Amino acid sequence: MNLGAIIHRTESEMAYLCDDHTAQIRLKTEKNDIYTVAIIAGDPYSLRSRPDLVPFYQQPQPMKKIMSDAVYDYWQITVTSDKSRLGYAFIITDQNQQQIILTDKGFIAADDQSMLEDMNTYFRMPFFQVIDRFKGIDWVSKTIWYQIFPERFANGDTTNDPKGTKPWDAIVNPKWDDYYGGDLQGVLDHLDHLVDLGVNGIYFNPVFKAPSNHKYDTENYYEIDPDFGDKELFKQVVNAAHTRGIKIMLDAVFNHIGDKSPIWQDVIKNGASSKYADWFHVHDFPVHYTPTDNFEFAVDANYDTFDYTPHMPKLNTANRQVQDYLLNIAKYWVTEFDIDAWRLDVANEIDHHFWRRFHDELQQIKPDFYILGEIWHNSQAWLNGDEFTGVMNYTYTGAIIDHFINHHLNQTALLETLSSQLMLYRDATNAMMFNALDSHDTPRIKTLSHDNMDLVKQMFAFTFMQPGVPSIYYGTEYGMTGENDPDNRKPMVWETQLQDQDMYQTMQQLIIFRKQFATIFAKGSLEFGTENGMLWIQRDDIVGYFNTSQHQQKLDVTTDEVLLSNNFIDGTLLTDGFVICRQTI
Amino acid sequence: MNLGAIIHRTESEMAYLCDDHTAQIRLKTEKNDIYTVAIIAGDPYSLRSRPDLVPFYQQPQPMKKIMSDAVYDYWQITVTSDKSRLGYAFIITDQNQQQIILTDKGFIAADDQSMLEDMNTYFRMPFFQVIDRFKGIDWVSKTIWYQIFPERFANGDTTNDPKGTKPWDAIVNPKWDDYYGGDLQGVLDHLDHLVDLGVNGIYFNPVFKAPSNHKYDTENYYEIDPDFGDKELFKQVVNAAHTRGIKIMLDAVFNHIGDKSPIWQDVIKNGASSKYADWFHVHDFPVHYTPTDNFEFAVDANYDTFDYTPHMPKLNTANRQVQDYLLNIAKYWVTEFDIDAWRLDVANEIDHHFWRRFHDELQQIKPDFYILGEIWHNSQAWLNGDEFTGVMNYTYTGAIIDHFINHHLNQTALLETLSSQLMLYRDATNAMMFNALDSHDTPRIKTLSHDNMDLVKQMFAFTFMQPGVPSIYYGTEYGMTGENDPDNRKPMVWETQLQDQDMYQTMQQLIIFRKQFATIFAKGSLEFGTENGMLWIQRDDIVGYFNTSQHQQKLDVTTDEVLLSNNFIDGTLLTDGFVICRQTI
Repeated sequence: MNLGAIIHRTESEMAYLCDDHTAQIRLKTEKNDIYTVAIIAGDPYSLRSRPDLVPFYQQPQPMKKIMSDAVYDYWQITVTSDKSRLGYAFIITDQNQQQIILTDKGFIAADDQSMLEDMNTYFRMPFFQVIDRFKGIDWVSKTIWYQIFPERFANGDTTNDPKGTKPWDAIVNPKWDDYYGGDLQGVLDHLDHLVDLGVNGIYFNPVFKAPSNHKYDTENYYEIDPDFGDKELFKQVVNAAHTRGIKIMLDAVFNHIGDKSPIWQDVIKNGASSKYADWFHVHDFPVHYTPTDNFEFAVDANYDTFDYTPHMPKLNTANRQVQDYLLNIAKYWVTEFDIDAWRLDVANEIDHHFWRRFHDELQQIKPDFYILGEIWHNSQAWLNGDEFTGVMNYTYTGAIIDHFINHHLNQTALLETLSSQLMLYRDATNAMMFNALDSHDTPRIKTLSHDNMDLVKQMFAFTFMQPGVPSIYYGTEYGMTGENDPDNRKPMVWETQLQDQDMYQTMQQLIIFRKQFATIFAKGSLEFGTENGMLWIQRDDIVGYFNTSQHQQKLDVTTDEVLLSNNFIDGTLLTDGFVICRQTI
Repeated sequence: MNLGAIIHRTESEMAYLCDDHTAQIRLKTEKNDIYTVAIIAGDPYSLRSRPDLVPFYQQPQPMKKIMSDAVYDYWQITVTSDKSRLGYAFIITDQNQQQIILTDKGFIAADDQSMLEDMNTYFRMPFFQVIDRFKGIDWVSKTIWYQIFPERFANGDTTNDPKGTKPWDAIVNPKWDDYYGGDLQGVLDHLDHLVDLGVNGIYFNPVFKAPSNHKYDTENYYEIDPDFGDKELFKQVVNAAHTRGIKIMLDAVFNHIGDKSPIWQDVIKNGASSKYADWFHVHDFPVHYTPTDNFEFAVDANYDTFDYTPHMPKLNTANRQVQDYLLNIAKYWVTEFDIDAWRLDVANEIDHHFWRRFHDELQQIKPDFYILGEIWHNSQAWLNGDEFTGVMNYTYTGAIIDHFINHHLNQTALLETLSSQLMLYRDATNAMMFNALDSHDTPRIKTLSHDNMDLVKQMFAFTFMQPGVPSIYYGTEYGMTGENDPDNRKPMVWETQLQDQDMYQTMQQLIIFRKQFATIFAKGSLEFGTENGMLWIQRDDIVGYFNTSQHQQKLDVTTDEVLLSNNFIDGTLLTDGFVICRQTI
């Protein structure tokens, strides 16, 4: 028995309340090492106060092996307690019938009666704290996001075009400092396109006043950028979207501020005597840096910045004034404009104290407010229920790309990676993740796929069946292309003859499908595997097959079960094809 | 290589800021499986923005194996970053020179260049968040606590004796509902005893108005129990203690309230229409229970309680009014009476939201305020810097008792258990733990030791050399005895002829020793092991030897190095003896 690989952690993704009355408990063990795991769980006080009862340690409940990755098997069980408090331990049996019990005090022999009788032996969920538990949000689980980069979606009002605005051109390769005149009027004009497509949430890249075209260098968090419109127009956009059942998510760039903001300008001007001197991480005054050929790079800024860009001085969110300043902004756009979600830029580089206040204060205004963090790595520390609802799930969708396109991961390795990722978080958290195959920060998925649209459709179908909420980057529905920033930010293709109508219809069908079975994708069972060169994934009674091999594969499904398919012909699934069926038993 | 036993977790006791500029990183691997571990660590953005630099992944730094338990080896390193941000991964080499790298994306081959170049491959400490880090408290590390159970320490004022007060008697076996008239005047009268003993912190069991002798069933958090005195007298006690350099810690019983409190009485009287109806976890109204022969037990209370006692209805700390009510109490005794610490009763059964508010609001009043939780099990979730400073370290001292007295753990098992426990927490946290060999909730250590005072002295000497702050339960310095509650709460022995003066002198010497080397015990190196049937522990240049075998052992130390000893005669350490030396090199 590999004791070192038998792992549990209390008060984490391995032991959590999933609703007010039930808890989920997980254990991981070395892959294929352990034959069975059972839990002994009950009210710890009953061991000393209720001698009239059969002690809970004499009533083991079997745990289920729910998933495996390259290294571990994962075991899970849902338990409850009428006293809202739990002590528990794991009875672990290997293939040779060797048995041991894992407790809060380490491993003990299965017959160690004196340890089993002591309530302090057990792992504890001391009380079912509803206030602490991670809570999913119902509307989010039914959402398909549509990401809009405002400068490039549609130019609805040429009177607010910035100087030097170039003519709208959907196949141009934009430069980093180009302007094309996209604005909020353009969004308002095209809301019915989104309705027709079927999406029901807009994630806006930043819309606040800022000098750049991407607006991540905020100059004024209280103003809509005049190139995009004004507050009145933004209110119209929100209301028109809400009328259509579309939620609105804005981008909160709180890690840093733009160097053109009055606040930073005051620090430049007044140095250590600026009232904002402690709003940043300034090493010494006056602040300075040496410009280089690269606008976004300086090696010697004497203040902390995002990356190495001198134009984005990092805010000191440990300063109470800064916290209040940013939280007032966050609350202002919710209370005054009724937005439904914040996406948090560079969320990992801001402290947890700040995010906990952010979470608590936003929840008080709007209990079902969605908080989405931009984090590209393990996000456990932010997803315990008191900070974010989800993160941009690049690691998850990255693994999908690494299999379907790059073939860096084979089928087994893909499923192992997805399993590892899912097991980092609570089930309810996984359902809140933001699953984008591309964004303003990555090459477009069609370009990554070398223009293979069957492959793009297959990946979307696969992604739509995952836990987590899908997002479509503007123009993907029409087959737009683009390499990394700035090429992924081309003006939206509005000319019908340049639009990929076939892709559009597939996206429409996928969105209808995702919405129809939203509850299953949020809360249904999940299993996946490989079979005859195909990947399969099953969510309750919905099964998808994905041929990611180089050969066509026979697949025996009756046609009347088929919900969606591509390249599935006469019982044969071609390479890059998929078929999704509903099981009729 | 046992991959399943190679374990790291970001934003935890395995990766944390230890001061504003340096971080400690830990890794655990299967015991004796791994030959070397090196870390590659640096500014993650440098990988894409600083091609002029040698990439950090080409500059491995060796980690040190600092400790081992029954299952794991623990590796640690202290690192820094001039950008206050870290990406890192572990290069792991086994005995056969097999090598692998553990990253945030799992295991990768040691030569996987494309992964190493990608900043998203690495574990991250995204920014050195000083506000989030766990902070030790300087005065705590210099403190030796003295625990006073007020009803039993000294009767300084017979005019406030409760009805039926029994005559003071240090060798009686008290019953659960006896009263002996102990009070705050008694404490005030005997402060100079504490000065003489050398302790410099008093932990008071509850002093607020409550019907029981233990006062854990609070009736009024804003009043000193009239049997103990009044606020004016309490203020005198605090001031007199402070004048003598003695800190004051009170007991906050916030998990539950006493059923005689006006708040619960209102719920009894008004049921669902009580304004306090949501202050508790009431399942249905009216509240009721069926009394039993055991005052502290009812099987059918229709409201949540502590344990099964109907007289301690559990407070609903998720209710904002309850939070405000309790936090105002917590702050009142700090601002009005200048107390230095709160000990939190049944702290594990109250939610994390509450404790975070508690921590933040208390810190704002008194930045070096000590918050001590009563938790008997793994306390990781409460010790991340935003809730408690330490917990009552029963698991740690319990292991010491299990070796020295019960022999359930042999020498090796003891050191493995201590190692496991230490590796659950940050170094700075371990230094803040509350290490009591006995308390009002356990049998007295002399009784556990079957009156073997050499053994008691040996255990105190061993405990005093550990990380964490020692506590002495009133009367232990005079050799008081007692079985479990209520026998461990005998009236203090003030009659000279009943006092163990030899024990008293040993305690004095130990306290002087602990205070003299407080910095070493808080921050010094720590190694321990076994040698010739003896346990040894080394803190910087201080070494202690403890003969816990059944045979006397030869030990070669020159007499002029010896700081403290017992049963160490002519180079021979007798059973239950100890010797502590200062190494002169």
